[in-house]
Amino acid sequence: MINNNETLAIFQRGADEILPLDELKKKLAKNIPLRIKAGFDPTAPDLHLGHTVLINKLKQLQDLGHEILFLIGDFTGMIGDPTGKSATRPPLTEAQVKENSKTYQHQVFKILDKAKTTVVFNSEWMNKMSALDMIQLASQKTMARMLERNDFSNRYKAGQDIAIHEFLYPLIQGHDSVELKADVELGGTDQKFNLLMGRDLQKQAGMAPQVILTMPILEGLDGVQKMSKSLNNYIGINDAPDDMFGKIMSISDELMWRYFELLSFKSLAEIADLKQAVQGGENPRDVKFILADEIITRFHDNNAAKQAQQNFINRFAKNKVPDEMPEFSFAHGIKIANLLKEAGLVSSTSDAFRMIKEGAAKIQGIKITDRNFEPALGTEVYQVGKRKFARVTIE
Amino acid sequence: MINNNETLAIFQRGADEILPLDELKKKLAKNIPLRIKAGFDPTAPDLHLGHTVLINKLKQLQDLGHEILFLIGDFTGMIGDPTGKSATRPPLTEAQVKENSKTYQHQVFKILDKAKTTVVFNSEWMNKMSALDMIQLASQKTMARMLERNDFSNRYKAGQDIAIHEFLYPLIQGHDSVELKADVELGGTDQKFNLLMGRDLQKQAGMAPQVILTMPILEGLDGVQKMSKSLNNYIGINDAPDDMFGKIMSISDELMWRYFELLSFKSLAEIADLKQAVQGGENPRDVKFILADEIITRFHDNNAAKQAQQNFINRFAKNKVPDEMPEFSFAHGIKIANLLKEAGLVSSTSDAFRMIKEGAAKIQGIKITDRNFEPALGTEVYQVGKRKFARVTIE
Repeated sequence: MINNNETLAIFQRGADEILPLDELKKKLAKNIPLRIKAGFDPTAPDLHLGHTVLINKLKQLQDLGHEILFLIGDFTGMIGDPTGKSATRPPLTEAQVKENSKTYQHQVFKILDKAKTTVVFNSEWMNKMSALDMIQLASQKTMARMLERNDFSNRYKAGQDIAIHEFLYPLIQGHDSVELKADVELGGTDQKFNLLMGRDLQKQAGMAPQVILTMPILEGLDGVQKMSKSLNNYIGINDAPDDMFGKIMSISDELMWRYFELLSFKSLAEIADLKQAVQGGENPRDVKFILADEIITRFHDNNAAKQAQQNFINRFAKNKVPDEMPEFSFAHGIKIANLLKEAGLVSSTSDAFRMIKEGAAKIQGIKITDRNFEPALGTEVYQVGKRKFARVTIE
Repeated sequence: MINNNETLAIFQRGADEILPLDELKKKLAKNIPLRIKAGFDPTAPDLHLGHTVLINKLKQLQDLGHEILFLIGDFTGMIGDPTGKSATRPPLTEAQVKENSKTYQHQVFKILDKAKTTVVFNSEWMNKMSALDMIQLASQKTMARMLERNDFSNRYKAGQDIAIHEFLYPLIQGHDSVELKADVELGGTDQKFNLLMGRDLQKQAGMAPQVILTMPILEGLDGVQKMSKSLNNYIGINDAPDDMFGKIMSISDELMWRYFELLSFKSLAEIADLKQAVQGGENPRDVKFILADEIITRFHDNNAAKQAQQNFINRFAKNKVPDEMPEFSFAHGIKIANLLKEAGLVSSTSDAFRMIKEGAAKIQGIKITDRNFEPALGTEVYQVGKRKFARVTIE
């Protein structure tokens, strides 16, 4: 274990909140490995970089010598997590949950050290729990307390239904902390209520309550909305090296620093050096190369990263983007085929469909594959063939 | 089984609602014994006549040849029933529940035919239920649906806490109907929501849904508020014969007919004859004698009933109440000792305590035993010793 000031800085890097910070300091002062819990619902087996923000933090704490309790909510997955959802999520079957949890682990161990990670399933204790135990757990909290959770109160105010079992979910998640005797629990900012529930239930069980640490939600490629598959502004950890490279090169310089903080394992000192270099005149493109290299190496290997960089440079040289080009603005929601037509890059929407099919239509040098795609918010260079370009803002 | 028109009249006697009546008619038309469920929480082991309204109805249906499923909610008793309560009821221990359920049965079989009654405990199936089963049951209903229940929405609007497990109670009560394959469920009007929940869950389980039959809440001796121990306006089924007799004689003539409808096993035709007799000039006092005789015979025996009547007549002759006496009004909540002092029946509250201790203080001829008693709403004759009387209204 390294000394506590450095340790604390590693806990705090990129974190949204640590509650209560004093308790974390006291726990660290004991100089023994902490039991650090993070729970994952095996509902989204295809991870993107947004999901890895939390896993990266676990990796940093694992490297400090703390014990990572990687909790797979296989039991709770069969209930469904309503967090941030506007409607009741349909429960998964046991078979789906098992399959998803395998896929999950396969991806997560590209970051975490498998040998040093304790994987636990909450079905271990929850399958033994009786209806009466469940009722007694439910008796510990009130409806008013549950409605303090934003998504519950928003749904309630909007007259949307909340199924009774959804109230049981945060209780089970909190009870997991009791079972695991967690010292610290990590989660996204949207999980704060549930993390605090664990703290409450541990206190009620007469334990030292866990410290909670929330990590922010990562912005997508547009730099505005959260990274998500449905917004098509994501980098999947199973994406091909060339796709990863192109997507990373497409982000703004500002967003690049955010990604360094939350996605890179470079120290804060190294990142500060890079910032100084850019301020001193270094091309930000070359710093993005460094970020892309680290991320592609993590999820593929370094050869793949180097090859992707070479491919990008070749493509860039061949498809040099002119400095001057026409500019357009469209309202968010426009379909790609209409956009290409309105921007004068194609003669008709059927022409657009043909160009997309032939792989001749690109955004920031990346081929468009979905003819029904709705471009995300932000400004990007659209291209059809080798010579037609437009700078388009979606707003 | 007797014919269905008479049967239907017996179902309907005194009932508040039968939903849906058409379905009951169809079920009766099959001319097979119906499975009639009534659930009892073993939380109030000392029954009063108010509790017997429902049990009397069960007895009438039992006599028609239907199968009575007397469900003791031993499992749900350990959760606590929030119905009509303004605060979370503390759960009972398993030992308390067992003891209460024995006392309950002992009293109930003074009315129902033990040999013909199927006593069931919901712990039989609920103890086997897992947390996951409970969660799946909870997933079938929404918070909005639960807040349709008056006491929940009133508590919610008043900012009073509802513990999450309280929402599980109606679900379990409804699930009991699924387990029992009930054709009809009886309950008080305050149970309507829970009875309908059973109907819902049976439908969701693909069964023919139960018909629900609600019985009204019996008024206490004052004829205004519901009969309850805490309001001290009740006749306990373990009350001594003389107390029962005195209390029955104290009710108004109007309330007497209500009691005949809900508490007597005389046929509606017999009751109509008694009404006609009173209209023709018969002293209502003598008709009350008939009611008192039936009730005391049910819970004690006919000798005790005859003796109580004789004792009442002797006491009445000795303690004749004057026609004229001073009248007073006090706000509800006044303690008996203060009332006696303010009404000039004693010289001080310590004098009042002494008179109560000596058994010299009476209301409507019945000795006051509790020196901290707060008289119920209504007008009654208060008496200290043989000569001091006052007519007091509590409002």
